[in-house]
Amino acid sequence: MIRGKFITLEGGEGVGKTTNLEFIRDYLQNRGTRFLVTREPGGTPIGEAVRRLVIDSQGMEAQTELLLMFAARAQHIREVIEPALADGVWVVCDRFTDASYAYQGGGRGIDTEIIQFLEQWLQKGLQPDLTLLFDAPIAVGLTRAQSRGQLDRFETELPDFLSRVRETYCDLARRWPHRIKLLDATQPLAGVQAEIAKHLDSLFQS
Amino acid sequence: MIRGKFITLEGGEGVGKTTNLEFIRDYLQNRGTRFLVTREPGGTPIGEAVRRLVIDSQGMEAQTELLLMFAARAQHIREVIEPALADGVWVVCDRFTDASYAYQGGGRGIDTEIIQFLEQWLQKGLQPDLTLLFDAPIAVGLTRAQSRGQLDRFETELPDFLSRVRETYCDLARRWPHRIKLLDATQPLAGVQAEIAKHLDSLFQS
Repeated sequence: MIRGKFITLEGGEGVGKTTNLEFIRDYLQNRGTRFLVTREPGGTPIGEAVRRLVIDSQGMEAQTELLLMFAARAQHIREVIEPALADGVWVVCDRFTDASYAYQGGGRGIDTEIIQFLEQWLQKGLQPDLTLLFDAPIAVGLTRAQSRGQLDRFETELPDFLSRVRETYCDLARRWPHRIKLLDATQPLAGVQAEIAKHLDSLFQS
Repeated sequence: MIRGKFITLEGGEGVGKTTNLEFIRDYLQNRGTRFLVTREPGGTPIGEAVRRLVIDSQGMEAQTELLLMFAARAQHIREVIEPALADGVWVVCDRFTDASYAYQGGGRGIDTEIIQFLEQWLQKGLQPDLTLLFDAPIAVGLTRAQSRGQLDRFETELPDFLSRVRETYCDLARRWPHRIKLLDATQPLAGVQAEIAKHLDSLFQS
């Protein structure tokens, strides 16, 4: 059995992840690939319960938030992601560990070493084969997120927080250029999707 | 302001923690001490939500369980325990980090180093001033737990699991004899409570 590929989507608020996820879904369907689409935090009953807790709670400590994200991730990896990949199924995941570096690390100020420790403990060698990072200025993303209606606890963070999230994402892309592909989410959708298709094509050839 | 004392109660299932908690409550009230009683996992709205998730969920991974316990603990320390102690209030907590070593470490087999890392990150120097460890053979505890009615996910673990929990608790007591006081929970209640009173007396003198 050839192992499935692991694709993650990352980026701040309102950068078009949902729209482009649909594009990726269509692309993989047209290729006849067996795949599943999932998300973090979430992807399992336990993970979805954690997601509600993280999004709805008031006054959550940064350490609590990080630990809950990794608790959901541990369950997701063992229950869904690893079994699927081992079975040859591609996994497309809306946010993964890069988001912990960006939000809990860059945004909340938790030391990178703590996140690295948890990542290594839970993931061992597991890393996405391809990470699509959708990047747009904070103001652009927030306007789009607002137009969707009520904002959640992360979307209502101050611009400073969201800037640090964006900066950290960009740092990660510079650090892991082979894995993380930074896409300019302010260009017309057709342009973004042409780039996505190119990266997916490469993944099929690899 | 003199810092409050931090007392934790530990032990397996059905060892009499609840009964003896009432005794400690009465003792502290008679002394006129300002104190609060709390528990883990729990003690905050977020922690109690995590508690329900941990106790009710099926198929939870050991790593997930450990991370949820520490997520609840992080919130509990920052929101309740540290502010109370700093304000001179004594804190009596039904289970704390020793339980993570016993249940997730000894019971589920998670490496001690992982638990130590999380403990050091979250607690810095915070340790209980006194830990009362109630010890009884597995069979004694289980019979008592069963007599209370429906058993939870931990009480229905196999004897092997519960033996490893007990062993780990006893190892901890040998390792930290100054902090952890092992009480033979099979002796008559009056005997147990005389020992508890003696340890509390010492704490007031220290």
